[in-house]
Amino acid sequence: MRHAFPMDLIIDAAPQGVSARAHLVDQLRNALLAGQLHAGQPMPSTRVLAQAAGISRGTAVAAYEELAGEGYVEIVPGSGTFVAEGLPSLEGRTSIKTAPADSVLSPASDSEGDSLINLSPGSPSTTFSGHRDWTAAWRRAQSAKLPALVPPPEGSAELRERIAEHLHTARGVACDPEEVLVTAGTSDAIGLLVHGLRARGDRLRMATENPGYTKAREVLNQLGATPVPIPLVDGGMDIEELSNHSGALDAVILTPSHQYPLGGRLPVASRLSVLEWARNSEAVVIEDDYDSEFRHGAAPLPAIASLDEEGRVVMVGSFSKTLTPWLRCGYLLVRDPLLRDRMISTRRALGQPVSGIIQQVLAEFMRSGGLRRHLGRVSREYAHRRALVLATTEDLAPEVRTHALEGGLHATLTWTTGITAESITAQLKHLRVAVTPLSRYYYESDCPDQQGIVIGYGAPTDLELRTALQQIRQVLLEIRE
Amino acid sequence: MRHAFPMDLIIDAAPQGVSARAHLVDQLRNALLAGQLHAGQPMPSTRVLAQAAGISRGTAVAAYEELAGEGYVEIVPGSGTFVAEGLPSLEGRTSIKTAPADSVLSPASDSEGDSLINLSPGSPSTTFSGHRDWTAAWRRAQSAKLPALVPPPEGSAELRERIAEHLHTARGVACDPEEVLVTAGTSDAIGLLVHGLRARGDRLRMATENPGYTKAREVLNQLGATPVPIPLVDGGMDIEELSNHSGALDAVILTPSHQYPLGGRLPVASRLSVLEWARNSEAVVIEDDYDSEFRHGAAPLPAIASLDEEGRVVMVGSFSKTLTPWLRCGYLLVRDPLLRDRMISTRRALGQPVSGIIQQVLAEFMRSGGLRRHLGRVSREYAHRRALVLATTEDLAPEVRTHALEGGLHATLTWTTGITAESITAQLKHLRVAVTPLSRYYYESDCPDQQGIVIGYGAPTDLELRTALQQIRQVLLEIRE
Repeated sequence: MRHAFPMDLIIDAAPQGVSARAHLVDQLRNALLAGQLHAGQPMPSTRVLAQAAGISRGTAVAAYEELAGEGYVEIVPGSGTFVAEGLPSLEGRTSIKTAPADSVLSPASDSEGDSLINLSPGSPSTTFSGHRDWTAAWRRAQSAKLPALVPPPEGSAELRERIAEHLHTARGVACDPEEVLVTAGTSDAIGLLVHGLRARGDRLRMATENPGYTKAREVLNQLGATPVPIPLVDGGMDIEELSNHSGALDAVILTPSHQYPLGGRLPVASRLSVLEWARNSEAVVIEDDYDSEFRHGAAPLPAIASLDEEGRVVMVGSFSKTLTPWLRCGYLLVRDPLLRDRMISTRRALGQPVSGIIQQVLAEFMRSGGLRRHLGRVSREYAHRRALVLATTEDLAPEVRTHALEGGLHATLTWTTGITAESITAQLKHLRVAVTPLSRYYYESDCPDQQGIVIGYGAPTDLELRTALQQIRQVLLEIRE
Repeated sequence: MRHAFPMDLIIDAAPQGVSARAHLVDQLRNALLAGQLHAGQPMPSTRVLAQAAGISRGTAVAAYEELAGEGYVEIVPGSGTFVAEGLPSLEGRTSIKTAPADSVLSPASDSEGDSLINLSPGSPSTTFSGHRDWTAAWRRAQSAKLPALVPPPEGSAELRERIAEHLHTARGVACDPEEVLVTAGTSDAIGLLVHGLRARGDRLRMATENPGYTKAREVLNQLGATPVPIPLVDGGMDIEELSNHSGALDAVILTPSHQYPLGGRLPVASRLSVLEWARNSEAVVIEDDYDSEFRHGAAPLPAIASLDEEGRVVMVGSFSKTLTPWLRCGYLLVRDPLLRDRMISTRRALGQPVSGIIQQVLAEFMRSGGLRRHLGRVSREYAHRRALVLATTEDLAPEVRTHALEGGLHATLTWTTGITAESITAQLKHLRVAVTPLSRYYYESDCPDQQGIVIGYGAPTDLELRTALQQIRQVLLEIRE
């Protein structure tokens, strides 16, 4: 089907260093935001667009797919590409870095029907679920007759093999599939570890980051282990504090590649210190590598698991950030055979919770390269969103600092003036934007020395994110006053 | 594609009361067992078969599907139906009730390549997984974009609604979807209950059947609760023994509709006594309703949950027997709101392990009537297999007794002479047939007063089951000698 060119779109050649696709997407996005088109209006066909822009047809298709993923256009198979519903008409807006006139973005009322833009951290983009790689993996897994068995306690052999490959290529961690255990996600992994470490004593004590991943603390409390708070330094766990801790510790749980939620990277020297501490105190290092697949700019540091020569490190990973927590699937890399056997026999007693079907599909999705391709696509998407966050918040500095941008799919904004994060969060909620106050990540007894909010930029559409960021910026401007 | 009629098959009209399909299947099965055809030979086309038998084409298709499910033929889409590999040629055999000449079924050697016929109990028929109802449920669930969320701790609202409906129609238990929790199977359900009951004290003591479901005991041990053995009377838990037990008990776990593994039904009077005991001792009754969907002959007795007016009963069910344990999905019916809230907050802390995708597919499979239709089909299949077990073992009486045939998908054979079940099991293993000795279900400290083996007839093909039953019969004949 052929569409006439509906707008006066002048497409420049891409500047050096910018891909033709990225440049085209930017120009189309700006044209759409400039309000030249009505919802439902057809976009030019990919053939026409390719000719006009002097690019290949494939690049034009990819550009439309990206804009569709961002919520600007809708692709109707067999019909063409159309302008999406609900685009704000930001007249005169031509660049993503130009802030729109504030009056244009009218604050949403609190009435029913206005939908909340959810920026809760940890929710990724799930665009993979409509992709042919994903449906092909399902079709293939579905064509096999289902076994009448319980899936193995350690996970299916095929999925463990794929995970070992993934850890090698994506994280540089060489491992044997035998060392991999399939879990129902990070909470399940930590629960299994607590059971596996029970042989050390009835009341396990485990060091955790403060602020840090609250779910891990909840698992420990539920299973009768004691979480012990260790403060951060430069956005990563303070290993000196860990080493000087007076009580005995059985393990430490930390997020070295991208501290949750502040986003710092643990320096290599500290990684080596953790290993030394573990050796001296005969403790286990639990390396939560939760979103290390997404690096924006900075090169990844070696995983602690790859520096470990004595099997003291257990690596925890999941598909919750790379695909979706809806899947409920993750993994553990456990090098110590004794600990691993204890964990497998716990699993045998309590039951393997991960459906064999989910394991089959994931193994197939990884085997076919679908996961790798998805990670490539969303990494670009997240890098773009990260740029949006930076662009929107840069003029709030120095009062408001932006953190956690080296990787992953969330950012943290902090400030030290008297306005509380709870008040900011409440104002944003009134404007139909949900963010999480930083205080939520601290131990209850602790009073954080800074205020902050955590915003996840994985799940919303690009358009929702832009709208929400403008609201956030507006509300945070009062901190400077 | 058209096949000539390859055998001299005379098909009579079905006798009164027998469906045309069932009669056709019987006649074709007998012809196949009579050895008139070679493996790989084409069967008549459904059109030719329908004409020859004076039945509809749909009935012919259904008959082939049933034979394919039983392992006699293979349906190659687009090509036709072919005689399966590995059919024993039982010359002169014309009826399923006529035992074949023993020499014909040559005992398989222990060499590599001979595949074991696995009669481990608890493995169901998974014929649903190739059925259009199942693939349609998948397609529908897959067409929705996946959420970027963790599934709710209590399970998805839609699946809980479908389960409540199922409990009402299949088990006569009226309940509110709010009272249903989604689990990853029975072990997960019992684990969640232990956590939920923790408020009662640190060392929970729970009565269980002896012999009984060993997995439940393993979960209790793993989570620091103490399983307490209660003997059986007439194949169900001895409620007098339970009431007279000297120590305090927090709960009882029992399988009243079909005792596992002996298969007795707990009489209504005993069901009422359990409730009275629970009231007097302020204990919880955990009713494991694991395979109550399959009744052969005897009408089901009311579930204890339907007699309970005080919310003392928790009902445990799963899709492991109705579909497959590979799915890892089940449910709990918890009427007591306080206990339910405790279980939900445990779940929130430890993480909901059941994939949202699996929940979507199951809800859709139930909504569309796929589960109901599958239960109808396999109930007929299991009733037929039960008849096979009875026919093969009837002349072993009175030395060998056959139990557990009122429902479900396993049977237990017991005897009291000196030959141990372990010796019988070892002989059968040599003949490539895997069964489970009854002693496996007793508490370790206990010496069972009878020998026995448990055989599951759900998962093997009809043909494998016939072969295995002949081997079992041969080996058990020595008990009479």
